[in-house]
Amino acid sequence: MTINWQTQAQKGKDILNNSIPKQWLLPIDRLPPVSQKSVVDFPRQSGLLNERELGITDMSATGLVTEMGNGKLSAEEVVIAFLKRAVLGHQLLNFATEFMADEAIARAKEHDEYYKRTGKLVGPLHGVPISVKEHIAMKNRTCNTGYVAWVDKVTTEDALLLELLSKAGAIFHVRTNQPQSLMHLCCSNNITGTTLNPFNRTLSPGGSSGGEGASMGFRCAPLGIGTDIGGSIRCPAAFCRAYGFRPSTLRNPGTGIKVAASGQETIRGVVGPLASCSIEDLELFQKAVLDQEPWDIETSLMPLSWKTVSPTRDMTVAIMWDDGWVRPHPPITRALRYAKEKLVAAGVKVVDWEPYKHQHGWEVISALYYPDAGGKQREVLAESGEPARPLTDWALSYSRSTPLSHHETWALQEQRDIYRDEYHALLNRRGVDFILCPTYPAAAAVMGESQYWNYTAIWNVVDLPSVVFPSGITVDPKVDVFTEEDREYVPRDEVDEREWRKYQDPERYEGAPIGLQIAGRRFKDEETLAAARVVEEIIKEKQSKI
Amino acid sequence: MTINWQTQAQKGKDILNNSIPKQWLLPIDRLPPVSQKSVVDFPRQSGLLNERELGITDMSATGLVTEMGNGKLSAEEVVIAFLKRAVLGHQLLNFATEFMADEAIARAKEHDEYYKRTGKLVGPLHGVPISVKEHIAMKNRTCNTGYVAWVDKVTTEDALLLELLSKAGAIFHVRTNQPQSLMHLCCSNNITGTTLNPFNRTLSPGGSSGGEGASMGFRCAPLGIGTDIGGSIRCPAAFCRAYGFRPSTLRNPGTGIKVAASGQETIRGVVGPLASCSIEDLELFQKAVLDQEPWDIETSLMPLSWKTVSPTRDMTVAIMWDDGWVRPHPPITRALRYAKEKLVAAGVKVVDWEPYKHQHGWEVISALYYPDAGGKQREVLAESGEPARPLTDWALSYSRSTPLSHHETWALQEQRDIYRDEYHALLNRRGVDFILCPTYPAAAAVMGESQYWNYTAIWNVVDLPSVVFPSGITVDPKVDVFTEEDREYVPRDEVDEREWRKYQDPERYEGAPIGLQIAGRRFKDEETLAAARVVEEIIKEKQSKI
Repeated sequence: MTINWQTQAQKGKDILNNSIPKQWLLPIDRLPPVSQKSVVDFPRQSGLLNERELGITDMSATGLVTEMGNGKLSAEEVVIAFLKRAVLGHQLLNFATEFMADEAIARAKEHDEYYKRTGKLVGPLHGVPISVKEHIAMKNRTCNTGYVAWVDKVTTEDALLLELLSKAGAIFHVRTNQPQSLMHLCCSNNITGTTLNPFNRTLSPGGSSGGEGASMGFRCAPLGIGTDIGGSIRCPAAFCRAYGFRPSTLRNPGTGIKVAASGQETIRGVVGPLASCSIEDLELFQKAVLDQEPWDIETSLMPLSWKTVSPTRDMTVAIMWDDGWVRPHPPITRALRYAKEKLVAAGVKVVDWEPYKHQHGWEVISALYYPDAGGKQREVLAESGEPARPLTDWALSYSRSTPLSHHETWALQEQRDIYRDEYHALLNRRGVDFILCPTYPAAAAVMGESQYWNYTAIWNVVDLPSVVFPSGITVDPKVDVFTEEDREYVPRDEVDEREWRKYQDPERYEGAPIGLQIAGRRFKDEETLAAARVVEEIIKEKQSKI
Repeated sequence: MTINWQTQAQKGKDILNNSIPKQWLLPIDRLPPVSQKSVVDFPRQSGLLNERELGITDMSATGLVTEMGNGKLSAEEVVIAFLKRAVLGHQLLNFATEFMADEAIARAKEHDEYYKRTGKLVGPLHGVPISVKEHIAMKNRTCNTGYVAWVDKVTTEDALLLELLSKAGAIFHVRTNQPQSLMHLCCSNNITGTTLNPFNRTLSPGGSSGGEGASMGFRCAPLGIGTDIGGSIRCPAAFCRAYGFRPSTLRNPGTGIKVAASGQETIRGVVGPLASCSIEDLELFQKAVLDQEPWDIETSLMPLSWKTVSPTRDMTVAIMWDDGWVRPHPPITRALRYAKEKLVAAGVKVVDWEPYKHQHGWEVISALYYPDAGGKQREVLAESGEPARPLTDWALSYSRSTPLSHHETWALQEQRDIYRDEYHALLNRRGVDFILCPTYPAAAAVMGESQYWNYTAIWNVVDLPSVVFPSGITVDPKVDVFTEEDREYVPRDEVDEREWRKYQDPERYEGAPIGLQIAGRRFKDEETLAAARVVEEIIKEKQSKI
């Protein structure tokens, strides 16, 4: 018996629809019109959340834990506030794949009882609602990874990361959307459809952790979990005015995260946090996980404890204005220029970063994404017969037409390591501690147009920890005009031209926040987060009108 | 123009022969007869080394550094003593591929001058002669890796490890032999031929770091460097009454070590020390290397500093008597039994270790050795037209007949990691700190018979640091008889039968030393060495006649 793929896809949609807590759904006529681009102010206007709940959902995870520790907030009310906001967010942005309201509330009540009984918090993430990218497996729930073929597959174990977070007190209330194949910087699949950007619904929330981007931007949770093999945590964070951290490989546990090409190691994906409010929350997440020594279970991980490092302004930050291949759009350059001014004024040593063979880096990583010529992806698509989405085709077009031989793969792996060592030596030689750079050539991608990954993927191939944070600047078509001079820019090649032309009409990017990226030394994850905190603080000190 | 492989091979032989310091060669009639099995007592009988030199070559690296620090020994006389012993060793065992006498002596003189001028040592390995397995590249020298095709290839850089050791004061005086393909636990190639075991020249010195085994056993250097992807450091150490350490992967730097399947990561080889005198020397080597933070150059390495740990008897040692597949020969079991008695008497907690799926472990690792069906090896053999040695054919017979697909490779990599995690969890569950076990089913392999690797390869797939040290016991055909009961042993399968039958004639193993192996937790390299030190100490305390 052949089941058509739409029937299968519907099952995934049903799981989602059946899970939505109906009591918090707004009737369609109370929602803003579909044509309304930004919906970030709607929670207040909606009437769904009261003042206290609005206040709760504006707080950071760190702040929430403090208040729960003081007894000023209960875990239950925290979880309910975020659940309400998430339901609203889902109505506006289609970011969820499954709600877990009852379980989350029950868990929160247990936490409250524990607190009442002992006067203590369950752990460093006591009562913090965390949204979770769907392909991070949850016990007794399906895990489809964005593939129609897998909508029925129920997992028997929690991903190790979830186990650890749960032990630290976190509460998972909603699972979030991802693109088909996990290899779009957008967020669209054949099961639950397309997720929108809360700041401008004609824009993508980024991908592949796009549901997380929307969740953070709309504050459906103070923390979220994404995965990143080329920018999939960082682009959604940047596109949605949020925070995102790509740790060095082999620090956070990957056990139980489901991907098509499982067991592939040519380029390792990582799992890491997104946050709606602060870098401090990213640190809170990392510390809560690594303090539990996950390497004692997942033995491939680096046995490196999470260190507390003191932030310092005594550092050299190099600004990479352009990666030498694709010129960033004018508002990105404006944000970097603004950042430079503030950093220099604050006494931080700032130099320019001349990019080192980024196109070569892309050739290596893009070939190593698909040693099998995308065979595994095509196999899983063929299993259900679902059509490939345009951006799946786009991503697969990076692969060679036939599988790499083992010898070609090994040669590329050598190239990867040599490039990594060379890049590191260059940082040493130039005396640079951190690189401040764009996250993407645009502030955000117009839906379906996210074609250039190399401002983020470059740190995947070099394997540098990298943090995205909001610059505080958003695209203003009146300020960030496409000038006559811009029009005369002679692109380096057709890729540069394609990306540059996208900005010809600045209106398309209206209201898009600009996220900047900071990369640090390999395995210096703690130092990189601390530096990002300092840089953000400086950039946002007494922020003048911009 | 076709050059036949013999002509090429001769070039490698010429490099060796031209490099031998002729002044120390003994005329053949002063050498023991070829039929004489053990030659370990010959240095004293030879008259080549005087009493002082014999004393020097009996010292540990640690001891030598101390005496050079006291000014009681000069680096020059140390290097000359070991060079003389190495030349003699080479005449008896054919273990070298190239001598570097002039350079080594010149270097030693520089060290002596430095010491005279400053009163200080150059570094923690000041003046310590180290023998080096040939495929560890040396600047401006050829690096053939045991392949005739590569005898002409000159390297332009020192291997990173050599650079670091040299900075620490070490002096490289001789390069050592390895088998064709590097995948024999014996030591025979078509260039410089076959290396012999100093304790019994009908036995193999082990492989693939067989030249190192012989070098250590004959004390041609206090320290040596080998590589290990299935036992290639540990078997030579065990077969030659020496010490050998297989560190966890990604601790010691591999840059500049030349192998056919370069860039392959399915199973990672490691580089590590062998020592002729003590575990302390293995620690000295490791500390000298890791104190220089090689991860700041080779960024794939774990950024883990070398820790000093205090040895303790408060540990649980599990003895694995048998791996559940191939029964060890009677003298191995005798050595383990003796070790157990001593450990128990010393108050160490000793339990039995039930092996966990070692045959599965072998299936995974043996498949992952050759994802390309050995294509790369065959390619390099074909380049010169040299014939494959029998043990090369044997090793390649582990591979499937056609290359693995990427998907098969990925599935096996997953199996590898799952097995690793399961093994680790089992150690935790059983409360075992260290496993004491055989290194090989026999005390040493009869030349050409080294067919079973899984007492060592198992720790490569699980990736546990493991140390080999001499048990103090050697095979005595009068004690280690093949009894009627042994004759009646019913082997589990043809592999077990093959290995068991090899002992039917115990005389073949006469005088072979028995090396025991201790494996610790992944990345607990320091603790494993410290534990091995304690165990060896206990086993050798007031050693009774055995």
